[in-house]
Amino acid sequence: MDLLSNFRSMLGAANVLTGNDAAPYLTDWRGVYQGAAQCVVRPATTEQVAGIVALCANSEIPIVPQGGNTGLVGGATPDASGKAVVVSTSRLSRVRGFDPENNTVTVQAGCVLQTLQEYCRDRDRLFPLSLAAEGSCTIGGNLASNAGGSQVLRYGTIRELTLGLEVVTADGEIWNGLGGLRKDNTGYDLKSLFVGSEGTLGIITAATLKLFPLPRMTQTALVATNGMASCVQLLIRLQTQIGSSLTAFEVMANECLKLVTSQFPQQHLPFDGSSVDASWFALLELSGSQDREGLGECLETMLGDALEAGEICDANIATSVEQERAFWNLRESITLAQAKGGKGIKHDIALPISKIPEFVEEMGRNLSTTFPGLSVMPFGHLGDGNLHYNVGPSPRFAEDALQRSHDRIYVMVHDAVHALGGSISAEHGIGQLKRGELKRYKTAHELAMMRSIKAAFDPMNILNPGKVI
Amino acid sequence: MDLLSNFRSMLGAANVLTGNDAAPYLTDWRGVYQGAAQCVVRPATTEQVAGIVALCANSEIPIVPQGGNTGLVGGATPDASGKAVVVSTSRLSRVRGFDPENNTVTVQAGCVLQTLQEYCRDRDRLFPLSLAAEGSCTIGGNLASNAGGSQVLRYGTIRELTLGLEVVTADGEIWNGLGGLRKDNTGYDLKSLFVGSEGTLGIITAATLKLFPLPRMTQTALVATNGMASCVQLLIRLQTQIGSSLTAFEVMANECLKLVTSQFPQQHLPFDGSSVDASWFALLELSGSQDREGLGECLETMLGDALEAGEICDANIATSVEQERAFWNLRESITLAQAKGGKGIKHDIALPISKIPEFVEEMGRNLSTTFPGLSVMPFGHLGDGNLHYNVGPSPRFAEDALQRSHDRIYVMVHDAVHALGGSISAEHGIGQLKRGELKRYKTAHELAMMRSIKAAFDPMNILNPGKVI
Repeated sequence: MDLLSNFRSMLGAANVLTGNDAAPYLTDWRGVYQGAAQCVVRPATTEQVAGIVALCANSEIPIVPQGGNTGLVGGATPDASGKAVVVSTSRLSRVRGFDPENNTVTVQAGCVLQTLQEYCRDRDRLFPLSLAAEGSCTIGGNLASNAGGSQVLRYGTIRELTLGLEVVTADGEIWNGLGGLRKDNTGYDLKSLFVGSEGTLGIITAATLKLFPLPRMTQTALVATNGMASCVQLLIRLQTQIGSSLTAFEVMANECLKLVTSQFPQQHLPFDGSSVDASWFALLELSGSQDREGLGECLETMLGDALEAGEICDANIATSVEQERAFWNLRESITLAQAKGGKGIKHDIALPISKIPEFVEEMGRNLSTTFPGLSVMPFGHLGDGNLHYNVGPSPRFAEDALQRSHDRIYVMVHDAVHALGGSISAEHGIGQLKRGELKRYKTAHELAMMRSIKAAFDPMNILNPGKVI
Repeated sequence: MDLLSNFRSMLGAANVLTGNDAAPYLTDWRGVYQGAAQCVVRPATTEQVAGIVALCANSEIPIVPQGGNTGLVGGATPDASGKAVVVSTSRLSRVRGFDPENNTVTVQAGCVLQTLQEYCRDRDRLFPLSLAAEGSCTIGGNLASNAGGSQVLRYGTIRELTLGLEVVTADGEIWNGLGGLRKDNTGYDLKSLFVGSEGTLGIITAATLKLFPLPRMTQTALVATNGMASCVQLLIRLQTQIGSSLTAFEVMANECLKLVTSQFPQQHLPFDGSSVDASWFALLELSGSQDREGLGECLETMLGDALEAGEICDANIATSVEQERAFWNLRESITLAQAKGGKGIKHDIALPISKIPEFVEEMGRNLSTTFPGLSVMPFGHLGDGNLHYNVGPSPRFAEDALQRSHDRIYVMVHDAVHALGGSISAEHGIGQLKRGELKRYKTAHELAMMRSIKAAFDPMNILNPGKVI
């Protein structure tokens, strides 16, 4: 029996896609990567995943796992050879168990993040991972790429939220590493190794994840600051005063919000006068179980102190849920506004927070000197030291000129980040996009350690080959 | 030149110990394990560690890294062959860098935990790892064993507190993985793999660790509860009401506190009447940046509600720092009281919190049926699902009878833990002590994955051989 017939008898013909049916799985959502595959298979059980891997291992057929296909680095798109089998986790979407006393949930890899958030919220628990693609990305993809998002400041990346995994390894065996233990020191941390390995060490089929009490209230403020150094001082002020009640601290360069309000005229900056010209805005979220009034007063006092200390020039505390949503909408519309503004260049960088003021000042100056007219539109999660340092075209710097300068800008930004001890991929992963960068910035020693792990777990190199390393 | 001469010319004769000078390094502090070694070396720099490893690698000489030598599983004691070289990190004790804006500290492996805690406290920051041995254990040992302690509930184990590592690998190369990044998705998580590997994959020489704002105030309460199921309900109540302000939730069986107050007559239970007969006591710590009065009122309200709900029968909120210390002293004296009460059997177990009431009830019943008179004295970190399920001799069950039953009890407890999805080593590690248990409870598949990692990182098996796997 040939491979496809085998798959059809294992999964049913409806779950072995070829031709047009397979097409959506062979390109990424941005249309940057285009691949080919023998077929796309949609297993419904972990055992079926194991069966698929065993079959592929037999004939050394490459396997590309795919969740919601929302990645930004081509990690879920097969190469052009047409040899690969894409394993979609879309039918592995069940919540397997919920333990309110242990504050854990066990869920299959194909469950959509937002579905899981809502499942937990309905049961009075918070699953805190939150990111722009949450309506379509899956837990498996989140795990494979060690997703971050806007609540990392308080709750960590998904690696820190993961207590256990179920993984199909390259030999088609199932590792049942599920379980809701907060302490377990029985050997090497396999779990953390699979998280963030982008499907190159095993296929994650389920996970046990940490839950938290649902915050009883939130307070959200949009703040016009006196520059990035002031943002860092404000962050320290808030952390010192309220610690873990600070659950988000996002920053947006003026250029980002200008673009949002021009691309989406229904959106408005809630400031007037000179405040609209502030170089950096910050979006703050406090949440917790304290009473809302108490936290609101506390926020007002802190922002008053920050105003006096010259860290901020204006502040707007949301007085309704609608206004909270409007503030977050400004933040969440940046990516789309940038896409509408013309094809740009994305950098997903992290730095020690103390280095960020220096970085944004020097990088901005160097870019505008070398590429006059270039639009620099950074934004991101200051609380985690993570900036989406994006640049775009402008009337003075056309889209095609920008794309011709792509590689020079890419290297210029990443070299500066590396020189300051930063990361060239904070939360998007490596995939196909940044394999070259990895070689540029990692030492031979570190790459050798990674390759030795890959060889140990996947000696035939059938798991998502051509990704990461 | 022979090995010792080489070491002497590299480190100076004073830092190559043999004979009596070496003796303290060749046994663990409890005197359970006794080993031998060619010598003990005390490098003062990472480069010297690398030089030592390179020399040993050349002749395939086993290396046993050792920090404060406070471990409980023999992980830092060489075997009896006398072939090994013990590498003590005692001279690698410097804080290398402190970054208040990034909330990080970079420290060498040999720094004593308490020294680091105080260094950070003096600079208005909290390094939250806290455990009984903190006055002598080192950061390197904490990292090698993924130390937990009493603040894991809020801050996680040291793996979650670690942002970067510097490691000497088996080939004598230095991996500089230091850095204060909270998000970094550039390849496999080597850091998490080295943490908890007990010196079998590399020698950790330095780390960059997360810091937190220093809590402005704490509130501590000792509570007499109506049993373990009530403890779990109380834990959920507190987490729901105050979330991350709950920084410790310790439980102690009545037998533990009886033993403490009888072994240390200067210590007293702050209860009278029938409350002193409660089966389980809980020690609660709230901390944060809110005002002390507010949190105190909040604690009183919650404990009042818990009393009404029948979860607790009595509660005592500390009204002074002295009383706080007295409550914690009761908790921290348990280990010593048990040691004075006769040689017992320690089990360092973790379970899903929801399974703990069932476990303690059934295990207690089964043990007292099978071994009548045995003293069962469990205590631990309920917030993390971690119990030190210790048993000891009693007037009705003599010490030698207990030791003759050691293996049966060990297996009985661990089998029950395993059946409920728990861990047989929550925070002490595997070392020499639990290698056999690892084989009993891990699947062949999981052990094979671990062995493949060991082989990839240490193909000659020179790094702490005979430990973990």
